[in-house]
Amino acid sequence: MKKINRKNFIKTAAISTAAVSAGIFTGCSTEQNNNSAAVISNKHYEWKMVTTWPPHFPILGEYADKFAEWIDAMSQGRLKIHVYGGNELVPPLETLDAVSSGVAEMGHGAAYYWAGKAPAAQFFGSVPFGMNAVQVNAWFEFGGGLDLWKELYNDFNLIPFPCGNTGGQMGGWFNKKINSIQDIKGLKMRIPGLGGKVITKAGGSAVLAPAGELYTDLERGVIDALEWIGPYHDYLMGFNKIAKYYYYPGWHEPGSSLELIINKNAFEELPSDLKEIIRVAAGKVNISMLADFESKNTEYYYKILNEGKIKYLPFPKDVLSTFKKLNKEVVDNITSNDAMSKKVYASYKKFQKNISNWYEIAERNYI
Amino acid sequence: MKKINRKNFIKTAAISTAAVSAGIFTGCSTEQNNNSAAVISNKHYEWKMVTTWPPHFPILGEYADKFAEWIDAMSQGRLKIHVYGGNELVPPLETLDAVSSGVAEMGHGAAYYWAGKAPAAQFFGSVPFGMNAVQVNAWFEFGGGLDLWKELYNDFNLIPFPCGNTGGQMGGWFNKKINSIQDIKGLKMRIPGLGGKVITKAGGSAVLAPAGELYTDLERGVIDALEWIGPYHDYLMGFNKIAKYYYYPGWHEPGSSLELIINKNAFEELPSDLKEIIRVAAGKVNISMLADFESKNTEYYYKILNEGKIKYLPFPKDVLSTFKKLNKEVVDNITSNDAMSKKVYASYKKFQKNISNWYEIAERNYI
Repeated sequence: MKKINRKNFIKTAAISTAAVSAGIFTGCSTEQNNNSAAVISNKHYEWKMVTTWPPHFPILGEYADKFAEWIDAMSQGRLKIHVYGGNELVPPLETLDAVSSGVAEMGHGAAYYWAGKAPAAQFFGSVPFGMNAVQVNAWFEFGGGLDLWKELYNDFNLIPFPCGNTGGQMGGWFNKKINSIQDIKGLKMRIPGLGGKVITKAGGSAVLAPAGELYTDLERGVIDALEWIGPYHDYLMGFNKIAKYYYYPGWHEPGSSLELIINKNAFEELPSDLKEIIRVAAGKVNISMLADFESKNTEYYYKILNEGKIKYLPFPKDVLSTFKKLNKEVVDNITSNDAMSKKVYASYKKFQKNISNWYEIAERNYI
Repeated sequence: MKKINRKNFIKTAAISTAAVSAGIFTGCSTEQNNNSAAVISNKHYEWKMVTTWPPHFPILGEYADKFAEWIDAMSQGRLKIHVYGGNELVPPLETLDAVSSGVAEMGHGAAYYWAGKAPAAQFFGSVPFGMNAVQVNAWFEFGGGLDLWKELYNDFNLIPFPCGNTGGQMGGWFNKKINSIQDIKGLKMRIPGLGGKVITKAGGSAVLAPAGELYTDLERGVIDALEWIGPYHDYLMGFNKIAKYYYYPGWHEPGSSLELIINKNAFEELPSDLKEIIRVAAGKVNISMLADFESKNTEYYYKILNEGKIKYLPFPKDVLSTFKKLNKEVVDNITSNDAMSKKVYASYKKFQKNISNWYEIAERNYI
């Protein structure tokens, strides 16, 4: 933190607000130096970006496409990125390996997919009862989160960038009313990751199933419940036609971060302008994707509501508090078995505690 | 909104999650086409950016500086932006005129400063009891907000870009306890803009004073209260040394947007890559400045708390609800006297109502 002397601070503040015109400063020419002969790098790059999303998947895949378009435009075509949906080049869950080995130079996905390779990765994706989109971006950029992420991915020959966030998700679709934690017992629910472990601890069974089978599985009663994303994506999947209740909040994914990963050798070969173009474009994805999610989820929240068939219900308080307690056990188990998870989560937890208290002050009257 | 057929959607989702490797796709070469002879524009631009902030002002001025640095790096020095603090080239409140007339090509500030020239401008800066940072960005990009902003600024020969947000601010510093709305009567408070009009309607007097005089004015009792920004900036001003109570929330500035304004003729002269570099960099400022504000405000929230001299107090509910009612009168007065304000605020209000209901569902258990 740069130290700022209060008196100087006030002095500069005063300069600004004093109503004295400095007139037109003439030390700097507005003329364009059209004839300057700077060396412009003309080297071209054709890169592949593999993703964990279906091709052009609403919002998530669309921003991988946009990211490539923006970079094409910003670099005057000097960095062409060919975006591949899952299975177009490699299977979605081989994205990390493909970028690590250089089969593709770039990948777009979510860090929690790599929990099997590096347990600490999931804390960069989504943490049940964790931080929201704005808070987690503050942790990445100013709370040491991104440095830890880089440290973790260095072993995979990768450089990570935060690149998008889903915002708050929904708790999921249920055909059975959840009145107390007892109703989770025996519940077959499609829910992956840490959330799934919590459901299992609560006596339910966490089922994994391909996205393409979810509709039919819920319709036929193979599963009793499922979570997907939020109103927009869930409506596109048609779950509103076959479920009774739509529960909130999405305690298991309060603001899932997406990641851009880049093969380290490939990145280091780039000239500095293209490196900066990538870094800045990832930041633009970060704010625009979140805005897109929030606005489409708002629209589809009403669409589902207005069709009148679905009841939005909050999870009962005791259910959420039990989930929270069980989640602590799940996380403790991970952090006690993996030193890097312990280090990452300690940083995450401390930042969350502090920023949540500030949010309580700053935001509580506006939500 | 692109229509997506549910079956196709599920099909593509299924492709992605099926555990079948497509092997290495060979249709696209990873080799770098080093010899391609694209035409790279070599034209150089030297621009001036005037700002409403003191030079290098913490966070706000710093991001104007960073924005220029990033663009320098991304453009290989083809777009050099010289950043001027308030009064270094023109007085801060002449920023809009300077960019409009082409004295400077760019400006960074906040739209509510231009309420005197275009009343509707303030709805793009900050609205008491309005949207938070994420919500307002969703409105700009996906709710028609930015289009309206462009429409308004077109008359000034300007193109606006959302470029930063302060996040939730604080309610201000008081040396007198606010127990009910009666305590606002006779209160002399430094508070500009719509918030100031609300205080006046509540029987107080809204005082304007240069930043450099605020400390002394509060210390000597010339004013009874003041609002500035939030814990970080307020601490740098030393208000914690001379006030008793620090009230929250910042009802008058729940998430103030900052703006980048560009002279239309200057922008249109740029090649398309530099245009895109500017647009994308403004988006990166948007997310990083917010993250910076939230993390520094968190740090200084604790710093002030731990020094033990200041009490953080919430405004009583009846005070806030009265402010809200009076704010409605203030806004109604503006919108009934200015057609563009009416149009802009109608769009703002509708978007706020909808997205707030979605936030109630998605975020309420996390704040």
